[in-house]
Amino acid sequence: HTQGARLQDRLQTMAGFGALANGGCNRQALTAEDAAGRDCFINWCQALGGLPRRDSMGNLFVRFTGSQPELLPILLGSHLDTQPTGGRYDGVYGVLAALEVLHSLQDAGHRLRRTVELAVWTNEEGARFAPAMMGSGVFAGVFEQAELYQHSDQQGISLRQALEASGQLGSEPCQPFAFHAALELHIEQGPVLERAGLPIGVVTGVQGMHWYEVIIQGQSVHAGPTPMALRTDPVQALMQLLPELYGRVAEAGEEARLTVGSITTSTHATNTVPPQVRFTLDLRHPQQAVLEALAAWVEDKCTLSLGALQIRIRPLWRSPAVAFDAGCQAAIAQACDQLGLAHRHLVSGAGHDSVYLARLGPTGMIFIPCRDGLSHNEQEYATPEHLQQGADVLLHTLLTLDQ
Amino acid sequence: HTQGARLQDRLQTMAGFGALANGGCNRQALTAEDAAGRDCFINWCQALGGLPRRDSMGNLFVRFTGSQPELLPILLGSHLDTQPTGGRYDGVYGVLAALEVLHSLQDAGHRLRRTVELAVWTNEEGARFAPAMMGSGVFAGVFEQAELYQHSDQQGISLRQALEASGQLGSEPCQPFAFHAALELHIEQGPVLERAGLPIGVVTGVQGMHWYEVIIQGQSVHAGPTPMALRTDPVQALMQLLPELYGRVAEAGEEARLTVGSITTSTHATNTVPPQVRFTLDLRHPQQAVLEALAAWVEDKCTLSLGALQIRIRPLWRSPAVAFDAGCQAAIAQACDQLGLAHRHLVSGAGHDSVYLARLGPTGMIFIPCRDGLSHNEQEYATPEHLQQGADVLLHTLLTLDQ
Ligand SMILES: NC(=O)NCCC(=O)O
Ligand SMILES: NC(=O)NCCC(=O)O
Repeated sequence: HTQGARLQDRLQTMAGFGALANGGCNRQALTAEDAAGRDCFINWCQALGGLPRRDSMGNLFVRFTGSQPELLPILLGSHLDTQPTGGRYDGVYGVLAALEVLHSLQDAGHRLRRTVELAVWTNEEGARFAPAMMGSGVFAGVFEQAELYQHSDQQGISLRQALEASGQLGSEPCQPFAFHAALELHIEQGPVLERAGLPIGVVTGVQGMHWYEVIIQGQSVHAGPTPMALRTDPVQALMQLLPELYGRVAEAGEEARLTVGSITTSTHATNTVPPQVRFTLDLRHPQQAVLEALAAWVEDKCTLSLGALQIRIRPLWRSPAVAFDAGCQAAIAQACDQLGLAHRHLVSGAGHDSVYLARLGPTGMIFIPCRDGLSHNEQEYATPEHLQQGADVLLHTLLTLDQ
Repeated sequence: HTQGARLQDRLQTMAGFGALANGGCNRQALTAEDAAGRDCFINWCQALGGLPRRDSMGNLFVRFTGSQPELLPILLGSHLDTQPTGGRYDGVYGVLAALEVLHSLQDAGHRLRRTVELAVWTNEEGARFAPAMMGSGVFAGVFEQAELYQHSDQQGISLRQALEASGQLGSEPCQPFAFHAALELHIEQGPVLERAGLPIGVVTGVQGMHWYEVIIQGQSVHAGPTPMALRTDPVQALMQLLPELYGRVAEAGEEARLTVGSITTSTHATNTVPPQVRFTLDLRHPQQAVLEALAAWVEDKCTLSLGALQIRIRPLWRSPAVAFDAGCQAAIAQACDQLGLAHRHLVSGAGHDSVYLARLGPTGMIFIPCRDGLSHNEQEYATPEHLQQGADVLLHTLLTLDQ
């Protein structure tokens, strides 16, 4: 068994980096807060004999060498970056529970055969820099590092600049290495397990997701003398477009998701119809074919040229639906049975670094419930009991895969 | 007659300060560009013997002393600041045409009896700092200077800081002085004169206007695992609210105006329902009673508390409908007749510094047409002929009022 109290202490300490007023964290990727949180994590790892190194995407790997280092390693981990108004568990739990698993094994004097690489992936959230799962995506060869280096945050700081400024730019190239299995433990971030009253979810895969930027171009005119009928108002176009998009996604059924995470007018004068409105779309569905049909409809709807009114849509990111390794799923289910913990299989609604690791080797994910299914919110919460149960399942799955 | 070519030259030169790619200007109040444009203007005035001074709101007055300086002065002027994507004429024309009138009088060897104070008011546009007509508003005692000093722009720079940084903070207190009459020449910024084929408008007054900030508070949740039905999404609330607001204003008839100049989500993560959306409202009507009824309806509609969803509205500024001095209107109409220029009376849809000057003394405004009624847009345009005709009307009105 893992030590739940020690895990709680570390979660608490980590929540102090970028702490917000309402209990959550703003520890966006490659900020000073993120760097400080990682330093703290590295200290914990080094105290247990872990050897840290960073790659050119800022991904952090801490090696705990096994008794048979010639065997392929097992990857454990997740991410430490958060949303702008994020919670204490998303990502963080997966990293610190993995550390707790290794700590408990040392306490018990159990040496693993295989080396464990404890990974902290850079910018999983995709909040500061798009897209999400960036560090693991470059690791898996899905993204071009040179291209991503030029992506900028809202302040115009490039990823490359942020890597340097935060001291996270490592000397090793970001490139894949072979692994025996990769495991990620995470809060569900949705309501399924809580509603079913189950402590553990065995994740079968991750739904597909598309990100877009939409720009509506109108004509800036004066708010006072310009009759309403003579305007080409991008805000009025927005208010006509959005109900159509949400309506179509509602028709696609309960599993479909549409989110507008960001809207900004290009100017902010109270007395001027703005020339332009920009917004983002996040579209998801667990079935790849349904997602693609929805995406085609949305892309069509957001492409329009009608006099001075222009609507343009630009894909920012696509992550197809993913299925996780059957062997990993079986090992997780077996760990649950050993521990007497009820579980069910479910699809993840959120993307995770495991999505990209699954392209490289056998990958599995374990979910625990979170209160009200709430995530990407300061109120995000998981009970100490569930947190420990998840860590125990990770421990036993690791032991099975080490054999 | 004034010299149209010289006026064109100066308009052209001024458009070089904060010039944008599509022919317009971004010379927002108290920026380096605004300061540079004002310096250029001061040089022109000093070459004609004008004596400049600044007050504590950055309002610039250039004195051209008359032959009977014991008489009350005449105020001429407008503003040199622009919208973020503004044109070359809004405000600028009124200032430079007044200078051209004084220049023409000097060329003709005509000395006015009365002193002229050529005024350049600070932050008329209200684009960088709300509200609009700020410098003239403090001058007229409508706003508290100490309170406005704390207003910030989008970058968090306070008005007071901007006044200092741009070198526009004058040593004189901003306080009213008595004047014989105040005249402002301006492009119409709407379609009335162009449609009527008339070169001159005698402005009878200015419609009433209310500015608001509206905040919709929802709940931030994850874009992926959170079912649509479980969301409290401020963007979906926005898309339901806006059509109601525009619909009600449309019902109020052609004269009513509603503008949403700025929308921003409080966070910009693609994969998170934002906790909050903020937008501005600019509501106008020429009849004060209709405006107030509309405003009450809008304020009610934008006040809601429904579970996690909260809508709050905050008034930013109110400027009641204004009627200009009958004597000034008559002097302008008489000048048109002298020059053989057809004209009509009309209400201004835009606010102007004259709105506040009208509280202190006899005030009049002259309009000329602008192409497609377009303003607060880089394409803003008025013909050289109309520009000169307006300046001629200003000259003859000034001569009448000087008697
Ligand atoms: N776990 C998590 O919140 N990841 C962000 C990627 C996504 O948008 O699903
Ligand atoms: N003239 C002008 O554009 N003034 C801005 C004030 C207003 O919003 O009407």
